[in-house]
Amino acid sequence: MTQTAAIIGGGVIGGGWAARFLLMGWDVRVFDPDPEAERKIAEVLANARRSLPGLSDLAMPEEGALSFHESMESAVKGARWIQESVPERLELKHKVYRTVQTACEPDAVIGSSTSGFKPSQLQEGAERPGQILVAHPFNPVYLLPLVELVPSEATPAAMVSAAKELATSIGMAPLVVRKEIDAHIADRFLEAVWREALWLIKDGVATTEEIDNAIRYGFGLRWAQMGLFETYRVAGGEAGMKHFIAQFGPCLEWPWTKLMDVPELTPELVDQIAEQSDAQSGQYSIRELERIRDNNLVAMLRALKAQNWGAGALLKAADTSRKSMPAVFSQPIVTVDRAVPLDWTDYNGHMNEAKYLQAFGDATDLFMELVGCDADYIASGLSYFTAETHIRHIDEVHAGARIVIRTQCLLGEGKKMHLFHEMWEGERLLATGEHMLIHVSLETRRACVPSDAVAAKLGEIAQAHASLPLPEGAGAAVGRR
Amino acid sequence: MTQTAAIIGGGVIGGGWAARFLLMGWDVRVFDPDPEAERKIAEVLANARRSLPGLSDLAMPEEGALSFHESMESAVKGARWIQESVPERLELKHKVYRTVQTACEPDAVIGSSTSGFKPSQLQEGAERPGQILVAHPFNPVYLLPLVELVPSEATPAAMVSAAKELATSIGMAPLVVRKEIDAHIADRFLEAVWREALWLIKDGVATTEEIDNAIRYGFGLRWAQMGLFETYRVAGGEAGMKHFIAQFGPCLEWPWTKLMDVPELTPELVDQIAEQSDAQSGQYSIRELERIRDNNLVAMLRALKAQNWGAGALLKAADTSRKSMPAVFSQPIVTVDRAVPLDWTDYNGHMNEAKYLQAFGDATDLFMELVGCDADYIASGLSYFTAETHIRHIDEVHAGARIVIRTQCLLGEGKKMHLFHEMWEGERLLATGEHMLIHVSLETRRACVPSDAVAAKLGEIAQAHASLPLPEGAGAAVGRR
Repeated sequence: MTQTAAIIGGGVIGGGWAARFLLMGWDVRVFDPDPEAERKIAEVLANARRSLPGLSDLAMPEEGALSFHESMESAVKGARWIQESVPERLELKHKVYRTVQTACEPDAVIGSSTSGFKPSQLQEGAERPGQILVAHPFNPVYLLPLVELVPSEATPAAMVSAAKELATSIGMAPLVVRKEIDAHIADRFLEAVWREALWLIKDGVATTEEIDNAIRYGFGLRWAQMGLFETYRVAGGEAGMKHFIAQFGPCLEWPWTKLMDVPELTPELVDQIAEQSDAQSGQYSIRELERIRDNNLVAMLRALKAQNWGAGALLKAADTSRKSMPAVFSQPIVTVDRAVPLDWTDYNGHMNEAKYLQAFGDATDLFMELVGCDADYIASGLSYFTAETHIRHIDEVHAGARIVIRTQCLLGEGKKMHLFHEMWEGERLLATGEHMLIHVSLETRRACVPSDAVAAKLGEIAQAHASLPLPEGAGAAVGRR
Repeated sequence: MTQTAAIIGGGVIGGGWAARFLLMGWDVRVFDPDPEAERKIAEVLANARRSLPGLSDLAMPEEGALSFHESMESAVKGARWIQESVPERLELKHKVYRTVQTACEPDAVIGSSTSGFKPSQLQEGAERPGQILVAHPFNPVYLLPLVELVPSEATPAAMVSAAKELATSIGMAPLVVRKEIDAHIADRFLEAVWREALWLIKDGVATTEEIDNAIRYGFGLRWAQMGLFETYRVAGGEAGMKHFIAQFGPCLEWPWTKLMDVPELTPELVDQIAEQSDAQSGQYSIRELERIRDNNLVAMLRALKAQNWGAGALLKAADTSRKSMPAVFSQPIVTVDRAVPLDWTDYNGHMNEAKYLQAFGDATDLFMELVGCDADYIASGLSYFTAETHIRHIDEVHAGARIVIRTQCLLGEGKKMHLFHEMWEGERLLATGEHMLIHVSLETRRACVPSDAVAAKLGEIAQAHASLPLPEGAGAAVGRR
């Protein structure tokens, strides 16, 4: 049965909650007196619709129904989850809860997006205090899984487990905080870093851009996949977490930050950390963790490279500065020469079939560039699209191997470009890729002839290759030679 | 000409430097009295060799030569870059520099991996103080690009620019720190977070695992691509960075962290931050930044999903809990039903050709699972490998579209499995994929017959599909119908 969520306050955070519930199949009712609320939520929802569904490898449930309500009471009536995301003023939140509790189901979850208040503060003076808890998400709410669920002593265990289950069902990772404290857990880190950053700017040590780069070119990449303690566990190496923490101790007393209250690293605290770290990561050896870390870093760096952003943009720029174009066309042309990256491997322990086509696609891209179909040409509204592909997998190849692709032009006239790629590791033929490309207008999305310059260059290479023998395997169909 | 780096101290950090220089084509000379140094560096180098080369889309330069030296003098003689990574004891570092400077070139860069000392401290009593500067990297040094270069007032500008250029040439992102301070920039953040984390554990608020999850399921993913200020710029929305910072101010005075010295957010500081943020990110509208952020997050989350780690493991688990297997085989079987993810799009603004094969590969995987070739079967040492693929691209498709793949089994007997996939968006045929798979032993990597159970199930489906018409396009070769 379709469940219903009520969203009280529809800003960036409330809108993010609305989008997540909706795309997970819930009906969503919004109450927000802001006349701009509908527009604002529509904008968040547009972002969510373009990004969230593709995270899953399965079709999403049917989107729920979105409605806007004039009264808070009508929005919350019958809702399973009520999420309050109003400004951070305690008296305002109290007022909201009073109205909500006159109309909502007594066992509905009332979650607050507060980043600072403790649940016991939120519950003060409420009709049913146990129904209200902190459910603190992270922007963008529709993509980031973390939600901090913070109960108080007045919160029944059943309410916590219901909230946990419902949050999980909409794709979130609920972190139930054991003891209520100001700012819960994550925002304490954000606050600590934020203050330090303000000092660095105020003291003229670094600019906002330098600080962002100091984060995203370094520890930000570590934290995105392992967090703080698992990262240090790996850094500590074979000597173990206890040794690492114990020797870390003295540094903490150095005057490295502006903020100086330091917990004493007693033997008890060292033991506690080491034991928790063993429970968390002890199933992996340090060597295994190193490789997991490196796999993750390579996968994330290459994902960012494909987006040309952050540390990935650095990799792309480094490639550009090293790139050289082939100049001799009497033989098949080397269009790819690279190592197989870690993230191209699959469960069979070798390069995944789709990555063969990725490498052949890269080879085609370089060939296109060679005939003048480069970024400027594409920006002018013309390009080649692949119409057809035939791949023969002849031998396996593994991460780290150096692969070379040589490309023979079988035909290059009119709208057609017929290419034959051979992928080699040293003397070993790994695969062939035969591709028919059609020149298109990016405006009409239809076939058209290339520019004179591209036609001439393509014709020149096609002619140079015309005297080469037809490669073995060209023209074959699946299952027939 | 091959350049030479000298590595003084070959632990995890020194070994990481050695690996980066070597794989970027430098000769590397190591001095480390530890009898284990050679083994330790070999281990770091093995990790680097498996992960670094694939970051580039071009072949790496020829690896340099690695040598181990009995004396510091012979290691540093003629080296262009000398990197000191000895323990954090100032008198030890001074002793190293004294010896190094008796033998090294006067214009060589002497970089220190110190995470805490200022360059002016390192330079004390040196023969040529201007030659010594901080070059603080981040573990794993061979993958993370950030290196903090910290000069003192005694450092000539030419030394800084030489160090910057050389670091860039080995794929690093040098951040030249404007004013020397203890712990430079990044480690001040790490320290602040570390202390806060220790308090949370000591006070029983969270465990190491909960803290790591609070980071890697939330802000860690934001920081890996945008850092702190650009993230807040996006969160602040259309009202702008100045408005955002100004309203953020009061919260800083709340007792959210244990460490309380707060910089005053004067109008001047607010202006300074807003201006720096405009200079950094002002070329993008907030709407553009939101989409860039979401593209990056989707790409990183899906990269982590492929590794089954961190936030990506959550996505994978959510899919597993929702997955259902088809049970009716009288018609072509729905093997994929999903949205096209953002990171499947290429420069032509549509789904990239390699992603068609990825989707067809997923369809094949589900079909394999259906006939009993599942994770357990593969773990037992048997699998199917794709031998041949023929793809026809019939129409374009864009991110967010829902695609469905229906799979017809053309042949399923002996070692062969011949599949024909059709990819649809609604009533629109997008592409067909014809695949010949061969059953293999993962031990011998050779063809062999499947287990009786798999053969029986495959035979059952093949027989159910035998009466279906041969799909249009089956058996075709590139360029011929």
